[in-house]
Amino acid sequence: MKVLAFDTFGTVTDWFTGISDSVRETVPGVDAASFAKDWRRRYSPILARVESGELPWRRLDDLQTETLQEVAALHDVSLDGAQARSLVRAWRTIPGWPDAADGLRRLKRDHIICALSNGTVALLTDMARHNGFPWDVVGGSDLWRHYKPARETYCGLADLLEVEPAEVMMVATHQSDLDAARSFGLRTAFIERPDEWGGDEKDDSGSPDNDYHATDLLDLARQLSRAESVAPG
Amino acid sequence: MKVLAFDTFGTVTDWFTGISDSVRETVPGVDAASFAKDWRRRYSPILARVESGELPWRRLDDLQTETLQEVAALHDVSLDGAQARSLVRAWRTIPGWPDAADGLRRLKRDHIICALSNGTVALLTDMARHNGFPWDVVGGSDLWRHYKPARETYCGLADLLEVEPAEVMMVATHQSDLDAARSFGLRTAFIERPDEWGGDEKDDSGSPDNDYHATDLLDLARQLSRAESVAPG
Repeated sequence: MKVLAFDTFGTVTDWFTGISDSVRETVPGVDAASFAKDWRRRYSPILARVESGELPWRRLDDLQTETLQEVAALHDVSLDGAQARSLVRAWRTIPGWPDAADGLRRLKRDHIICALSNGTVALLTDMARHNGFPWDVVGGSDLWRHYKPARETYCGLADLLEVEPAEVMMVATHQSDLDAARSFGLRTAFIERPDEWGGDEKDDSGSPDNDYHATDLLDLARQLSRAESVAPG
Repeated sequence: MKVLAFDTFGTVTDWFTGISDSVRETVPGVDAASFAKDWRRRYSPILARVESGELPWRRLDDLQTETLQEVAALHDVSLDGAQARSLVRAWRTIPGWPDAADGLRRLKRDHIICALSNGTVALLTDMARHNGFPWDVVGGSDLWRHYKPARETYCGLADLLEVEPAEVMMVATHQSDLDAARSFGLRTAFIERPDEWGGDEKDDSGSPDNDYHATDLLDLARQLSRAESVAPG
């Protein structure tokens, strides 16, 4: 296994804290936690509409701008252009989980580490610089003009790195992402993130089909290091 | 200026030392320095044949495999498959110039730093890991299926980073690369590499049209830091 591919929103970064803080600053008086969760709930459905062909491919920021307006209406607030831009940009500076930067540095010693995210390369680059994530390769959705769980993203990354899908392990806190990755021949590691939704609503059981199940990235680094020290070769 | 885009072969790495050492180990008895230079001379012409449409797009390794056979014939040696693969792969582990890794780290503090090279993403990733180059983004030719000096590479990188071409500065030791970048709206910085061809044959004068002219990457970092500390905003 040569390459580790990481989901970013939820797996290496804490979108709930980052986005609810930004909502609190940008839209005073709104229930920021509820607003952030309502926005995040609209994320996968609109990407799925792109992948189904119902909507043309657009960058994540453009899709998030659209869902943001729906959420603002739901919360009975009206956002001006500057507020909307600021909230959409906030996804670039959401904080990493406390273990993320250090965990990635350790995992990088023996593996090529890549972001494999529905964000664009530019968004993920800003996120990496903000958090000190030492990606070898930034796999943004604009490289393939497809969104996970589309085959083009997982296999596109393997192709870009000139390896077989089985030489890539997808690392995520969302079982649906891992199930898709496995269906295309990648290996999978589940990361527990019990606070992803601010402390509730998160199923961290993970499927027994995953190759690894870890409490965080440092735990994954320990497990991989143990496994590889006993493996032949 | 937000983004610095670096040529790699010659500008951040010393292909002459890396390739002539590999030739010396892999093909004993051949004039390794001359072999390396003859191989490098065939690099730009075959890329130009791809860009002209005469050859279909292929990854750099495939093109280098072809030119390697020509050079082997010229030097009257026959290479088996393992030797050829080893020499083609040697481009992934050529050494950085002594200032490169440290210079890139300093330049990264205030700029997004990207490889913009005719190598593939996988090749450049191996080169970065071998030398400790801390790229934010690895701009390989396979992202655009075009080779410099094609417009698609320079403007493709700006587009990928969601900036205007004028917000990108191309950094290279080859004036032709900088001339092309400037023709597409990028800014340019020339880096002197007097030893690129093993101590001879290198014109390091640079055009007066370049925005910067530096003796190495540390010098460029000093010049940029000075310029930006006096610039308004």
